[in-house]
Amino acid sequence: MKLQNDLLLRAAKGEKTERTPVWLMRQAGRILPEYRAVRESVSGFIELAQTPELAAEVTIQPVDLLGVDAAIIFSDILVIPEAMGLPYEMVEKRGPWFPQTVSSEADLKKLRIAEGDNDLQYVMDAIQITKKNLQGRVPLIGFAGAPWTIFAYMVEGSGSKTFSLSREKLYRDPVFSHQLLQLITDSTINYLKAQIRAGADLVQLFDSWAGILGPAQYEEFSLKYISQICEAITEVPVTVFAKGAFFAREQFGRLSCATVGLDWNMDIEESSRLIGPNKTLQGNLDPAALYGTAEQVRAATWRMMEQFRGKRHIANLGHGLYPDTDPELVKVFVQTVKEYSAANRP
Amino acid sequence: MKLQNDLLLRAAKGEKTERTPVWLMRQAGRILPEYRAVRESVSGFIELAQTPELAAEVTIQPVDLLGVDAAIIFSDILVIPEAMGLPYEMVEKRGPWFPQTVSSEADLKKLRIAEGDNDLQYVMDAIQITKKNLQGRVPLIGFAGAPWTIFAYMVEGSGSKTFSLSREKLYRDPVFSHQLLQLITDSTINYLKAQIRAGADLVQLFDSWAGILGPAQYEEFSLKYISQICEAITEVPVTVFAKGAFFAREQFGRLSCATVGLDWNMDIEESSRLIGPNKTLQGNLDPAALYGTAEQVRAATWRMMEQFRGKRHIANLGHGLYPDTDPELVKVFVQTVKEYSAANRP
Repeated sequence: MKLQNDLLLRAAKGEKTERTPVWLMRQAGRILPEYRAVRESVSGFIELAQTPELAAEVTIQPVDLLGVDAAIIFSDILVIPEAMGLPYEMVEKRGPWFPQTVSSEADLKKLRIAEGDNDLQYVMDAIQITKKNLQGRVPLIGFAGAPWTIFAYMVEGSGSKTFSLSREKLYRDPVFSHQLLQLITDSTINYLKAQIRAGADLVQLFDSWAGILGPAQYEEFSLKYISQICEAITEVPVTVFAKGAFFAREQFGRLSCATVGLDWNMDIEESSRLIGPNKTLQGNLDPAALYGTAEQVRAATWRMMEQFRGKRHIANLGHGLYPDTDPELVKVFVQTVKEYSAANRP
Repeated sequence: MKLQNDLLLRAAKGEKTERTPVWLMRQAGRILPEYRAVRESVSGFIELAQTPELAAEVTIQPVDLLGVDAAIIFSDILVIPEAMGLPYEMVEKRGPWFPQTVSSEADLKKLRIAEGDNDLQYVMDAIQITKKNLQGRVPLIGFAGAPWTIFAYMVEGSGSKTFSLSREKLYRDPVFSHQLLQLITDSTINYLKAQIRAGADLVQLFDSWAGILGPAQYEEFSLKYISQICEAITEVPVTVFAKGAFFAREQFGRLSCATVGLDWNMDIEESSRLIGPNKTLQGNLDPAALYGTAEQVRAATWRMMEQFRGKRHIANLGHGLYPDTDPELVKVFVQTVKEYSAANRP
């Protein structure tokens, strides 16, 4: 079905658009009362993500409620370890938790390379239902975690302040580390290709723990695998968002991806210079700016748009929406992007 | 008393030294069995910090045990809010916690500007005892939290993943925010000057939560107050360590401080270019590198030293020692710095 609003895809490819597309990381989720109502009808986050009709419903909610230019499939980056043979649980207020972790050669042998279609059929079903119900209104974004971030969860077993166990692995056992990273990478490529076959119009890689590595380790243990994924995904545009990886911006400019996400620490002009003119930039309002008044949110969004003026741009926050954000102020952000960019066409 | 080893002070001032001085953030603490023995003799962290004889004892331990070129007084950055009228507790495995927080004009009125000598006499006593017992072997470093980091604790009441409450304050109520930051700054200047009168040979500011702010907010709400402190402290060299503030490196180069700390995300060559030749750089080995084998630690330290070659440098980690680090590997780090720099004199 032909897309009625393909601003996101054209902006990702660097084509001229009549205005700047806008969406928000974590737009489908806790900030919306309509999401919380669906969430309360099931036992937990994982059941919701594994019930395709409901996942599709919460995926589409922000398109209706917030007026964004893209939907992003409701899922989780940790479905990949699960599909590789390492199941996880979602502990209320604490986050994800893996009963078993990976630390030895023997553990590696128990893992398999995930096949997107077979192992994660519920995600593909959710994508197909979403595409059908969206009726071409906006593009649908698929996603996966970047291999280093998935590695950190699989070795650590949960989030962590210092990620000591996973960083110890990189130092103590680079051979093991590269083996596990390659398994994750191969699984992720299968998974993203299956999402694209199911209907995803663009895919985004989230490297949530990028900022914990120094530049040399990031290049060896993260960028190398992100690069493999970018090379493998040729069907749709790819966005790379690596939180905290300010030191790798020049390298991001050389990836075969369409778009690079910026977090709110990254100066827009400097990032544009480092990444170069051949990428679209996505971001990067401070999510905490949405704690301001409507007038403050409007002013902060306007300032951000002015800094992106003349650059290839997809408007977004510099990180996921914080759960206690007022949806009315999210609407102010979306509306301001639309107003600014309609009034300041290139 | 004349210092027998004043490498740290001469390196901070940019004077030539016969080798590179070395110390480690959090060198006095949990990694040492000798520290844990003292710690178990009292009820908790705060009692230890408030007992001058014991604080002096654990301050000196790493000089004896690790061979570092400086001692840093055993204390906590949160003594400042306590001295301002906002007491805190240290919750085992969870970290600091403030029963009351600051959120209104009325709360501000209840705070006072701390007077270093009167309000924090136990710190001054610990410094005096340490200086006496050190007998001039190495310099003693005093320290304080940077105002933004202290602000975040006072508003939030504890550590936080997103520091939503304190960042909301900056957006919603900049007037309140500046008032509180100024109170903290004035208190910190009093506190550092008292530490210097008591015997501190150099003082360091820790801006632990620098990396959570975007560049514009960092300049307005953090750098402005760090700058006031640097201008006010003229008696001894000042070191500024702002974790994650990669975006402010050029501005750090313009502060009236002697030394700028680098975290392990910051490329050494690029940081040196941005900060300029008039500062000493401190850092910046990844603390997780000390999870490697002795040979790996030696190699990683050697590589770091080569990258700092020809620059004004104080060797350290890029963050505090992780609590589960093997002291033997810390010794390898210290020893390697000494060997490298003795063998590669400028």
